[in-house]
Amino acid sequence: MSTSSKPITALDLPPVEEFDDDMQAYFDKCVEKLGMVPNVLRAYSFDMAKLRTFAAFYNELMLAPSGLTKLERELIAVVVSSENRCFYCLVAHGAAVRQLSGDPKLGEIVAFNFRAGDLDERTTAMLEFASKLTRSPDLIVEADREALRAAGFSDRDIWDIAATAGFFNMSNRVASATDMQPNDEYHAQAR
Amino acid sequence: MSTSSKPITALDLPPVEEFDDDMQAYFDKCVEKLGMVPNVLRAYSFDMAKLRTFAAFYNELMLAPSGLTKLERELIAVVVSSENRCFYCLVAHGAAVRQLSGDPKLGEIVAFNFRAGDLDERTTAMLEFASKLTRSPDLIVEADREALRAAGFSDRDIWDIAATAGFFNMSNRVASATDMQPNDEYHAQAR
Amino acid sequence: MSTSSKPITALDLPPVEEFDDDMQAYFDKCVEKLGMVPNVLRAYSFDMAKLRTFAAFYNELMLAPSGLTKLERELIAVVVSSENRCFYCLVAHGAAVRQLSGDPKLGEIVAFNFRAGDLDERTTAMLEFASKLTRSPDLIVEADREALRAAGFSDRDIWDIAATAGFFNMSNRVASATDMQPNDEYHAQAR
Amino acid sequence: MSTSSKPITALDLPPVEEFDDDMQAYFDKCVEKLGMVPNVLRAYSFDMAKLRTFAAFYNELMLAPSGLTKLERELIAVVVSSENRCFYCLVAHGAAVRQLSGDPKLGEIVAFNFRAGDLDERTTAMLEFASKLTRSPDLIVEADREALRAAGFSDRDIWDIAATAGFFNMSNRVASATDMQPNDEYHAQAR
Amino acid sequence: MSTSSKPITALDLPPVEEFDDDMQAYFDKCVEKLGMVPNVLRAYSFDMAKLRTFAAFYNELMLAPSGLTKLERELIAVVVSSENRCFYCLVAHGAAVRQLSGDPKLGEIVAFNFRAGDLDERTTAMLEFASKLTRSPDLIVEADREALRAAGFSDRDIWDIAATAGFFNMSNRVASATDMQPNDEYHAQAR
Amino acid sequence: MSTSSKPITALDLPPVEEFDDDMQAYFDKCVEKLGMVPNVLRAYSFDMAKLRTFAAFYNELMLAPSGLTKLERELIAVVVSSENRCFYCLVAHGAAVRQLSGDPKLGEIVAFNFRAGDLDERTTAMLEFASKLTRSPDLIVEADREALRAAGFSDRDIWDIAATAGFFNMSNRVASATDMQPNDEYHAQAR
Repeated sequence: MSTSSKPITALDLPPVEEFDDDMQAYFDKCVEKLGMVPNVLRAYSFDMAKLRTFAAFYNELMLAPSGLTKLERELIAVVVSSENRCFYCLVAHGAAVRQLSGDPKLGEIVAFNFRAGDLDERTTAMLEFASKLTRSPDLIVEADREALRAAGFSDRDIWDIAATAGFFNMSNRVASATDMQPNDEYHAQAR
Repeated sequence: MSTSSKPITALDLPPVEEFDDDMQAYFDKCVEKLGMVPNVLRAYSFDMAKLRTFAAFYNELMLAPSGLTKLERELIAVVVSSENRCFYCLVAHGAAVRQLSGDPKLGEIVAFNFRAGDLDERTTAMLEFASKLTRSPDLIVEADREALRAAGFSDRDIWDIAATAGFFNMSNRVASATDMQPNDEYHAQAR
Repeated sequence: MSTSSKPITALDLPPVEEFDDDMQAYFDKCVEKLGMVPNVLRAYSFDMAKLRTFAAFYNELMLAPSGLTKLERELIAVVVSSENRCFYCLVAHGAAVRQLSGDPKLGEIVAFNFRAGDLDERTTAMLEFASKLTRSPDLIVEADREALRAAGFSDRDIWDIAATAGFFNMSNRVASATDMQPNDEYHAQAR
Repeated sequence: MSTSSKPITALDLPPVEEFDDDMQAYFDKCVEKLGMVPNVLRAYSFDMAKLRTFAAFYNELMLAPSGLTKLERELIAVVVSSENRCFYCLVAHGAAVRQLSGDPKLGEIVAFNFRAGDLDERTTAMLEFASKLTRSPDLIVEADREALRAAGFSDRDIWDIAATAGFFNMSNRVASATDMQPNDEYHAQAR
Repeated sequence: MSTSSKPITALDLPPVEEFDDDMQAYFDKCVEKLGMVPNVLRAYSFDMAKLRTFAAFYNELMLAPSGLTKLERELIAVVVSSENRCFYCLVAHGAAVRQLSGDPKLGEIVAFNFRAGDLDERTTAMLEFASKLTRSPDLIVEADREALRAAGFSDRDIWDIAATAGFFNMSNRVASATDMQPNDEYHAQAR
Repeated sequence: MSTSSKPITALDLPPVEEFDDDMQAYFDKCVEKLGMVPNVLRAYSFDMAKLRTFAAFYNELMLAPSGLTKLERELIAVVVSSENRCFYCLVAHGAAVRQLSGDPKLGEIVAFNFRAGDLDERTTAMLEFASKLTRSPDLIVEADREALRAAGFSDRDIWDIAATAGFFNMSNRVASATDMQPNDEYHAQAR
């Protein structure tokens, strides 16, 4: 048995024939910086408006100044995706964790079960919150926010943790609903 | 016992002192059209960039042309929020369902349990997909997409169902993580 | 889309042709006091003995003297029904909460997620117990009873909490099993 | 290690000092017919009105004429109690199944996992419905009722299945909430 | 209705025609000591190598010297099997608990819900660990091991608890996957 | 943040000072063939008898002749470990899948969510059975075995699927209970 190559999604939604200039520039920049266009962006390319608002929202979330480092945001991405067993996001953001941390094993730990790792108290508190928020958002109470504050997070940081965990709960579901496939390049990155 | 008035969220994140012009115009338009600014927008007002990308993303999702009617998108919003027991979204989008449908009972049905309603086959298929995608995104398989196609949805419609269900899985979690409170005005609307 | 009118239950069980005198008097009293006969009573009307024992059991539970107020018993009813997503009971007992409390928002809070409310410690303890007893009765241990005692409940009160939560776990299931529909009048009451 | 004797419930609710005549007669009849008073009745004995409505409701449910045999009603009782892991009800109604069927092994099968038994199609359909109604009442749809009809049950029978399964979902929770202990006599009965 | 006799498993896997000498001796010893060959051993008899490694592994686990008594190991077996609702193992190891403890009621308590028993602190800690390890092994953290140490267990004991709970999570699944039926003799033993 | 090196397990169970000859030979053979001794074997080294029966059982299961290929047995190992989120087994057996298949991506697919892969019908049927047997062994019924037969598996193959899935349900729990850490060498293998 070996894995054949699947289309980017299970939906018949080809990209627009001609990209808007800003989106073409964005794709060019992806190729320049990453060596590829992530498939999630290709999946949104059937509609320039959707691609634009998604990309803007995503970049603001993951790249804007925050009390959370970029690596911390990626750790949240992977733990949420692990709870939801999202193949696309585990592959793509697992690679990001390996790259940003320079620690291939850390990528495996958070993708498989962050509780098996030797993570520090701050990181553990952040990931426990993201995990509970993913599994049972209806059970979050003030004590959960207090646990984050006790681990040193500000209220602004709590917002960012919530926004990041929320985002990947969305993204995991769009990926799972459409059988979105990650770029093959991710698998071997930063091993 | 009676409910006291709680702050918009449990986080100490006051709005910026001076709004950017486009966001001030957006709030003014909310007041003009809705008679209020939805609290979710006030919650994001501590950061103009976050408010802007959230509003743009939301408006594209819920208002752009789609094979799904605006009511159908609101039905998905409410059913996802029911699965996640999100107080904010059930109140705000329950009101939207009552208003768009002119059918107060329909708002209650989808907020409490859409399976108790006498919904048509197309709507039921759409909501069953949204429900499964919310509860167990990892179990979605091709047969689930086929069920939507059999109910008359195009692949583009399936994307929109997934994107809407995904969005409220995000929004529910940001609301639950921050204890976001809906505007009191919603409760009596369109009853 | 709009909701059509469904029969009281999905079962073909017409009421007896002639009611027993006591049951006729009971229905007359319902009309006099409530302006209608709740559909759950109509559903039981195919058998006078079943109607009689159900009504007697229900009235003893909800109206007899107790350390719990009538409103507290209705709060338990709604929270249990929210865990079980019972359309009938959420509609009927949600209306009762709004009426008894004079607080329409409280009805929404307990129907959607009582943890989102600003409920006092006693009420929260009571509803947490009812919620756990509904979700996982097998995990109730002495510590759960101790938490109620610490919140000021007597052992007799604990019995009444258990009996009320138990009753709606029954009633929710009879309603769901038969697709029981609440009277339309409830929807607009006490908004 | 050996099991010590626990009080009937974990609540300090002693029986009334003097029983009402009808309830005394009822207890006398229990002793005459069963050789004991089931502890659930002793547990309710702190309040004659509660004991009376409970006994009336229970007896109507389990003993009145029905398309379901008494054994079938006991099988539902045990399967519901197995889903809820209710020690009291599994012991007491497990004994009833052994006695009514004359088949000690059947009592074990339904208490432990009815799917492991070689039960006929009618019984399996009935118990699958009771199991789903217990685990996830919100997911019951018309197809579940149709499955019962296909197995030969009338709509009246469906009501009785629902009412019996509902009742033990109540009774299991009252027992679990109060740590109710079954009479020791049950353990060795009909083995 | 009465239970008919089912084959040992639902798989068509007859025993080898001629047993290896050591395995024949092992079966002879079972008959001598237990009066029967447990069906699980008959189920493995289609392959002498599988029977041999299974029996060796099982006997080392359950009979070797350990800080856990034989009864404690059987209690773990039953509680794990109760979580997994394994008919075979609940019957066979429930009988073992009754025999080793001389307390028929204890067998019922652990098979139905050990939390309903009046078990001592050490036993409760051990069974809570086995229960959590069965339900959600991914959530086990250092605090769970600390709770065992606080209850007096050594690290070697913790290994044995884990190994025993693990083993029955395997054995339950082999039994459930193959519909393995326990010997009828167990039902009446030590009642 | 980077991952520090943790001990092989969280339990203080040092290996025996002098290995039995057969076990020493086994470890030597591991080093010769794999370049290392898998940590699970080191974890068992505090007791030669336990190490011996575990190794014999494991080797019979994974290496003996079977209708299942060695790769298929490893796929089951990984899918079961994915359901249980077992860090140790996902790392060690994920590497085995990559090596045996020569397909690094396949290792990721089964570790993260086999339903996202383009697996053939036989493999999918096998893994769906292993997944259900892991999540809810109590719900396995004859129809599940029939689905395997329809996919071409013999009854002997079904035994082997059950035995393999069962084994990793044990092994996952021993690993999780003891916080067992995989050898670092696995992470980069066969990428």
